[in-house]
Amino acid sequence: MKNIAILGSTGSIGCNTLEVVDHLWPQFRVVALAAGCNASLLATQVEKYKPKIVSLRRRGEAEKFKRKFKDLKLRIAYGPEGAEEVAGFEENDIVVSAITGIDGLRPTLTAVRAGKKVALANKESMVVAGAILQKEASRTRAQIIPVDSEHSGVFQCLAKEKKKNVKKVILTASGGPFFWVPLKEMKKKTLEDALKHPRWKMGKKVTVDSATMMNKGLELLEAHWLFGLNPDQLDVLIHPQSIVHSLVELKDGSVLAQLSPTDMRIPIQYALTSPEREGSLLPPLNLSRSQVLEFYEVDEKKFPLFALARLALTEGESYPVVLNAANEVVVAAFLERRLKFSEIAGLVTKAVEHHQKRKVRTLEEIFALDQETRTHTWNLLKQRY
Amino acid sequence: MKNIAILGSTGSIGCNTLEVVDHLWPQFRVVALAAGCNASLLATQVEKYKPKIVSLRRRGEAEKFKRKFKDLKLRIAYGPEGAEEVAGFEENDIVVSAITGIDGLRPTLTAVRAGKKVALANKESMVVAGAILQKEASRTRAQIIPVDSEHSGVFQCLAKEKKKNVKKVILTASGGPFFWVPLKEMKKKTLEDALKHPRWKMGKKVTVDSATMMNKGLELLEAHWLFGLNPDQLDVLIHPQSIVHSLVELKDGSVLAQLSPTDMRIPIQYALTSPEREGSLLPPLNLSRSQVLEFYEVDEKKFPLFALARLALTEGESYPVVLNAANEVVVAAFLERRLKFSEIAGLVTKAVEHHQKRKVRTLEEIFALDQETRTHTWNLLKQRY
Repeated sequence: MKNIAILGSTGSIGCNTLEVVDHLWPQFRVVALAAGCNASLLATQVEKYKPKIVSLRRRGEAEKFKRKFKDLKLRIAYGPEGAEEVAGFEENDIVVSAITGIDGLRPTLTAVRAGKKVALANKESMVVAGAILQKEASRTRAQIIPVDSEHSGVFQCLAKEKKKNVKKVILTASGGPFFWVPLKEMKKKTLEDALKHPRWKMGKKVTVDSATMMNKGLELLEAHWLFGLNPDQLDVLIHPQSIVHSLVELKDGSVLAQLSPTDMRIPIQYALTSPEREGSLLPPLNLSRSQVLEFYEVDEKKFPLFALARLALTEGESYPVVLNAANEVVVAAFLERRLKFSEIAGLVTKAVEHHQKRKVRTLEEIFALDQETRTHTWNLLKQRY
Repeated sequence: MKNIAILGSTGSIGCNTLEVVDHLWPQFRVVALAAGCNASLLATQVEKYKPKIVSLRRRGEAEKFKRKFKDLKLRIAYGPEGAEEVAGFEENDIVVSAITGIDGLRPTLTAVRAGKKVALANKESMVVAGAILQKEASRTRAQIIPVDSEHSGVFQCLAKEKKKNVKKVILTASGGPFFWVPLKEMKKKTLEDALKHPRWKMGKKVTVDSATMMNKGLELLEAHWLFGLNPDQLDVLIHPQSIVHSLVELKDGSVLAQLSPTDMRIPIQYALTSPEREGSLLPPLNLSRSQVLEFYEVDEKKFPLFALARLALTEGESYPVVLNAANEVVVAAFLERRLKFSEIAGLVTKAVEHHQKRKVRTLEEIFALDQETRTHTWNLLKQRY
């Protein structure tokens, strides 16, 4: 039995992880949970899984929890430090890092520094601090296993191959809800349209990122750090069926690909059990029923944020930090209906174009630049109104 | 530098192997060649590669060779024993087994018994004597690497997976030249039609086997022995584009697949260099140009020989020997224009249905049953005229 901690336990990845834990019972024991504001769902999870430590975002909620669960031997923490305490809890064997955005960085780093096996769903931490995370992981021998379906696929295909034999890694993208929408109609698209993802059930932030294809750009940055590949070894193909998740082209012309049903519980389960595999809780892929797999190039004119992320990948240094911060601010504002879908790309681009590239070596420098970009992007947003 | 022997050097696989050897020069040195009747091509190969031993089918040709190459230090053998001598040549490191049909069995077994790395293109030897070949290979630690594109794909996907995690292996089939032909029009199909394969350039026997889909049935039997999988773990999907060569379904719902351009030089090169990989002599796969990958179930009504091969796989014991012998005889007769394409399936089926299942344990029993079936099938053929 392995002890598992879930950072972001009430989110989409968190809930899916708990379903996998139920399915694989009694292989995993939930010992630590960190949530955001959904205290009632966390309470249900506490009652069911009896963890030893939990964390909530706000102190007030934590106080209520203390009263509610006063009979349980349960450590209750809160705030960013609370999430870090959950991540670093000494009994953890596996930490599922599934807090959205740069908020996930410190807890992820804490788990890596503690030498845990980290199932990484929080791509933003790899995007902004990949160098630091990888350096710490090699120092502590922490294993970082990707949870994103595309990266899980690459991880599985690469398992068998020497890096020198890898020519290219291709991540697929569903194309999101607007792939079939003509460029000139993109202007009419609303929040509701953007949240209707055709293939994947995910959290709101990543669903909007899929609609702009920023998500795929962030995934390129994530892949760059996860697998140690050069920008020119990384590519994306639109694959509307979302059955092939990634392809690894080897230097002898063979391409290895990973396919699976479009359900996050599959890569989550692999991240928990790898290098072992356990039976699936889903019906198997039936290719003869799905029949057609299509592949298309990305239209960078229609998805300018994908092109911008590619630029950040090539430029490196401080660019990914700025890209991510500007995108987080603009997407949060879009989710609060402060702007139109068609304005997202322009605002993020403006924030990035304003930036002068510099070196960011430490966590402090990253957070300072993140904050600086957020302030600047908020100013850009405010200027609009 | 590794020493290479090619059994069937003047055939399609043999010639492709030599192209790969040229491409990878100077990694491989051709030391031994066994050919059939194409003495003039073998002579060209001898002049170019300067092997130390060659073998031809007929004694007369061998005598001519001795006169022609009297100045070379070249051992010249002939007949079945000659092919075996080439296979067992002590300087061989790798033996490419690419003689068509059951004629390839003894030389393949010789190479396996000598503990060589065997690049196996001769699927019939695995079909009729898989148990013996695998037993000998584990005794001598000979490595058997498949050359068939589908099996090469499976071999690459299985590389680091544990067998207990493998749920199913799916080989793809192009569907051959008649996949799009309606059942009622199959009667009109001629030898010329059958030899027009839409995707693969191969030898005549395997091209006809592709048109009847017996080839895919033989490949199921080959996969059964190569990978130690049960009949119910093996399946086939029609994939007209021939880009995905095989798929390995793992028990957690992930499917690993191998894709590559439709060219035998890719799996041949992998068989020679594995577990290493070298640069390809072909342009890479461009999925965004190929765009659509389709998958269909096999229509067993239209391809009764595929169903018959599936039966032989399930029944086991002597069935595969009888199936292969009857098919070899009938296809040879078809290539000599002694019967119509539409008659092939009926004749092979008749020969197999006549058979009473029994155990075949030794090579002698296999060859005796093979001979018995050939005689019986020839009689069936003669009765027709």
